[in-house]
Amino acid sequence: MSLTLTVLFVGLFNSYVTLASDPDPVNDFCIPNRDSANAILPCKNSSNVTVEDFVFSGIKFPGKSSDTGLASIPVNVNVFPALNTLGMSMVRADFDVGGVNVPHFHPRATEIAFVLEGKIYSGFVDTQNKIYAKVIEKGEVMVFPRGLVHFQMNVGDTRATILGSFDSQNPGLLKIPSALFGTDIKEQLLEKAFGLNAKEIDELRKRFAPH
Amino acid sequence: MSLTLTVLFVGLFNSYVTLASDPDPVNDFCIPNRDSANAILPCKNSSNVTVEDFVFSGIKFPGKSSDTGLASIPVNVNVFPALNTLGMSMVRADFDVGGVNVPHFHPRATEIAFVLEGKIYSGFVDTQNKIYAKVIEKGEVMVFPRGLVHFQMNVGDTRATILGSFDSQNPGLLKIPSALFGTDIKEQLLEKAFGLNAKEIDELRKRFAPH
Amino acid sequence: MSLTLTVLFVGLFNSYVTLASDPDPVNDFCIPNRDSANAILPCKNSSNVTVEDFVFSGIKFPGKSSDTGLASIPVNVNVFPALNTLGMSMVRADFDVGGVNVPHFHPRATEIAFVLEGKIYSGFVDTQNKIYAKVIEKGEVMVFPRGLVHFQMNVGDTRATILGSFDSQNPGLLKIPSALFGTDIKEQLLEKAFGLNAKEIDELRKRFAPH
Amino acid sequence: MSLTLTVLFVGLFNSYVTLASDPDPVNDFCIPNRDSANAILPCKNSSNVTVEDFVFSGIKFPGKSSDTGLASIPVNVNVFPALNTLGMSMVRADFDVGGVNVPHFHPRATEIAFVLEGKIYSGFVDTQNKIYAKVIEKGEVMVFPRGLVHFQMNVGDTRATILGSFDSQNPGLLKIPSALFGTDIKEQLLEKAFGLNAKEIDELRKRFAPH
Amino acid sequence: MSLTLTVLFVGLFNSYVTLASDPDPVNDFCIPNRDSANAILPCKNSSNVTVEDFVFSGIKFPGKSSDTGLASIPVNVNVFPALNTLGMSMVRADFDVGGVNVPHFHPRATEIAFVLEGKIYSGFVDTQNKIYAKVIEKGEVMVFPRGLVHFQMNVGDTRATILGSFDSQNPGLLKIPSALFGTDIKEQLLEKAFGLNAKEIDELRKRFAPH
Amino acid sequence: MSLTLTVLFVGLFNSYVTLASDPDPVNDFCIPNRDSANAILPCKNSSNVTVEDFVFSGIKFPGKSSDTGLASIPVNVNVFPALNTLGMSMVRADFDVGGVNVPHFHPRATEIAFVLEGKIYSGFVDTQNKIYAKVIEKGEVMVFPRGLVHFQMNVGDTRATILGSFDSQNPGLLKIPSALFGTDIKEQLLEKAFGLNAKEIDELRKRFAPH
Repeated sequence: MSLTLTVLFVGLFNSYVTLASDPDPVNDFCIPNRDSANAILPCKNSSNVTVEDFVFSGIKFPGKSSDTGLASIPVNVNVFPALNTLGMSMVRADFDVGGVNVPHFHPRATEIAFVLEGKIYSGFVDTQNKIYAKVIEKGEVMVFPRGLVHFQMNVGDTRATILGSFDSQNPGLLKIPSALFGTDIKEQLLEKAFGLNAKEIDELRKRFAPH
Repeated sequence: MSLTLTVLFVGLFNSYVTLASDPDPVNDFCIPNRDSANAILPCKNSSNVTVEDFVFSGIKFPGKSSDTGLASIPVNVNVFPALNTLGMSMVRADFDVGGVNVPHFHPRATEIAFVLEGKIYSGFVDTQNKIYAKVIEKGEVMVFPRGLVHFQMNVGDTRATILGSFDSQNPGLLKIPSALFGTDIKEQLLEKAFGLNAKEIDELRKRFAPH
Repeated sequence: MSLTLTVLFVGLFNSYVTLASDPDPVNDFCIPNRDSANAILPCKNSSNVTVEDFVFSGIKFPGKSSDTGLASIPVNVNVFPALNTLGMSMVRADFDVGGVNVPHFHPRATEIAFVLEGKIYSGFVDTQNKIYAKVIEKGEVMVFPRGLVHFQMNVGDTRATILGSFDSQNPGLLKIPSALFGTDIKEQLLEKAFGLNAKEIDELRKRFAPH
Repeated sequence: MSLTLTVLFVGLFNSYVTLASDPDPVNDFCIPNRDSANAILPCKNSSNVTVEDFVFSGIKFPGKSSDTGLASIPVNVNVFPALNTLGMSMVRADFDVGGVNVPHFHPRATEIAFVLEGKIYSGFVDTQNKIYAKVIEKGEVMVFPRGLVHFQMNVGDTRATILGSFDSQNPGLLKIPSALFGTDIKEQLLEKAFGLNAKEIDELRKRFAPH
Repeated sequence: MSLTLTVLFVGLFNSYVTLASDPDPVNDFCIPNRDSANAILPCKNSSNVTVEDFVFSGIKFPGKSSDTGLASIPVNVNVFPALNTLGMSMVRADFDVGGVNVPHFHPRATEIAFVLEGKIYSGFVDTQNKIYAKVIEKGEVMVFPRGLVHFQMNVGDTRATILGSFDSQNPGLLKIPSALFGTDIKEQLLEKAFGLNAKEIDELRKRFAPH
Repeated sequence: MSLTLTVLFVGLFNSYVTLASDPDPVNDFCIPNRDSANAILPCKNSSNVTVEDFVFSGIKFPGKSSDTGLASIPVNVNVFPALNTLGMSMVRADFDVGGVNVPHFHPRATEIAFVLEGKIYSGFVDTQNKIYAKVIEKGEVMVFPRGLVHFQMNVGDTRATILGSFDSQNPGLLKIPSALFGTDIKEQLLEKAFGLNAKEIDELRKRFAPH
């Protein structure tokens, strides 16, 4: 029996039984009950909920930089369960000098980015293929409308940091280079789509192959 | 004065005074009043509404093929005003042999694609960079979840046709190759994002420069 | 214990633990885990999800005709689980010559109908009791606004087929003749509502009594 | 010019520039500005709003009885503009002895009915054609789920009154007998749908022809 | 094992596995299955659902008066499970002569209040700190927009009764005096917020300390 | 004619023609057109939209402190029009040493607060009158669920700053002390609600009377 329950738990750990980030929840809050072996409870019993459930300390310090000089820490329901059903989440992104947040989009949220430190070239492309981009700096805010491709690069001389907010507890993230070249999309299709030859596509694929 | 009214009209023609694709409308329907000089009315007076408003004949025949061998005709509120506030739209896509619908996504809708004719390699990538792709044929249906990147290629020996349905009156469309390389994203950022050199980026840009 | 689990499974098989067809889900998708004995998992573990989950082949061919000459196959979450949480579904409807889709409505969705073959008299009634009806043919599209009564009849010389799309994963269907006369609504109420006498109501009831 | 403005006004009177009954409004309230000649303002300037805007006195007394012995007064945004954008409305229904509220449904709302006086046979039919009906009395409450067909009859010896509440500012109302037989649905379709002959359909049509 | 199941049951009793009061449910209804030991089923099997599930008789008579002369009975999904997923609930409030419904708000719903008996001073404050208040009487209706602070007092010579309707199955209720002075908010903060001294705050706290 | 148009403009300036903060917009964005004399266009023509529309620089520096030692600058659609229809907004709040953000709530949004500087005692009360409060510091995050009363006080030795994000373009703000004592709620009702005498209520009223 306990084996079965463990399996259940893993399943629910992933999905929290909550399928929607409703802007109009029916409870004050619903802390997912994932610390219990009893995975079927959708919310922690409110008598076990404490203020610690509503506070998150995991973005006090930057994360680890990636190849492109970006260190990002998502603050979503996976790490901060209190966000469950409340319709919001965050991200902290630190940029090395010259660091790049590659073109990407969030399929389920608008993002407001606030510059904590530094100078960031920041922009997005709308569905008419019009680009909106400029350098923003400490204390400034830029909004990326829901679902549109956006990107950032640290163009200052020092590290830069951005705090992003989303109107979904799980905005999702799709980085375009790896989504296109790190997956097995039929080569012929990519050649035609980008006007590249087989060799060029192969090189891109090597670069973005999942490790 | 009439000039001003014309300008107004053009403006509303684009936006229809309706800013949201509400799943729960308060009227039976709301046909945008764009045939009138009086652009400020959000809906046609219902006594002027006829059955013709609810019928669309513009996808009886294929459209004109693009460079990649795709002819697509969107059926959204711009061409079929009755969709206004009703939360749905469609697209007809015809593929030449070998024709490609380049990787793209719709920021505001799920799509269900039904194959009217032919054999289509069809797929999407999720936010874990996992690909779901296969060849589907006449009478089969594939669903592309909201906001995820998807693509199609006619892999049969004859023309192929797909009918797509969306759960938004204006799903939006962002084709990735032209969004990235047909806009003025800072070259250095693209180089770093794709691991390409300046010359390679330039070639891609020439290919996707807006005409 | 296993008996109890089986019972649970049946219950969840019906409801999928998903109560809403949210236009803004928090996951990329959620394939209901109904092939497992473990009915409490709301979504299949994503590592077990394959492209087959997103493809449906059950409307390649027409279904079986009813008394009124209609063969309809709903494509909803019951037969195509991938639709779960994605807010859409479909129907294929084939009409014999003279076949009728009786006045009905979908309490939870707008419908867009696309004529695959034939000539269909097609219409709806709005809440002002105004009728919008005409004959539509192959390649044409008609929209039935959310919740309004609509109906169709094949007025051509050959079989006709329609593909309908809905903006709900479970639009619901209420056929008016059987809802009124195939249920035990107090006879006196129906007499007064339709101005019919007891004998007339009884005849209607015999016709629509559930078999 | 004033003629044009009057026309505008009539148009907006019907639609209030508000196309959706949003569960999540961005203003505290939005009283439609229909007492002004300036019909294009979506909301009254808040400095002109008074408590009178939020109070409605029009259901203190019963309305006038119809043929079936029902007097109903809808309290929606047309008579009580403060409901605009707030997502709710009401109805007062008074029944003569034996009076009937014919089978009908609201395409855009759930209804909760509270019995103010009397004994009412009250019920609805779900999408499985299952009926839920019983006699309810003073002080009791019955809920009719969104979009389902429901009906009522005064089965007591005295007048009866019901207060209904809706979760839409404009639930809509479609009375089935007149929607089917008071509109020009092709006779042949109705014959096939109900199994009635031309003469029987004609009689029903005479009864429900709009006056 | 059965002990664990009982615990589960209590947990689900509170939350019903339904986290949102969706205006657009995917089922006709979903009666929570709380009469079973099997707490994990989100909905009762529809074959076990009867008309009794949809009828509530608990507000035929007034409840018990509080200190301020108010007797209120909430009709939400806890006492009337059929409301589950249907997006509505109610309250019956009886006032002694001079009885007061203290300033409070519902974080998740608009309220429409209908006066069943008596004369009630009734009002609310908007986010501009503007008050809208007046005496309403039998048969009159007042609407309190979503989330705004409102209050009522029986200013007549006889008992008074109000029936309130909400557009949420669980509107929530926060009574301001006890929320502020019946909880452990840091005293210094309250002193500064209200301009009161420590002794005055202490007296208020004694009054509203939870018993 | 031009006079009329000016009047139109003023009206729309206030409301932006957008009545709802829809989580599912139909356009990429909708910048309200308030800089133009042409007030009837709900959105700026997209050819006039520039990146400046999407960037806001007004919270680089703190605002002016209030009586309670709080300087807050809301970043909503009034000052940053690009937020229109995008469902989000922000606030910057600077606290003097000992400064207090009085108990308040936002009727239309959840808030996530991120501490930019300092140590802040921060908390909220749920609908069960349970308090969740603690001191949070630089780099920590606290979430206040939608519609619940919350409060903050700078308990450190230096100025403190918080950045708040909301999932509504217009969350609304209701400060409890001034809403209760700075408005004309009947004195007798407040006496009974708080258990204070007329003199005590009068003193509170003097303190919070609008200047």
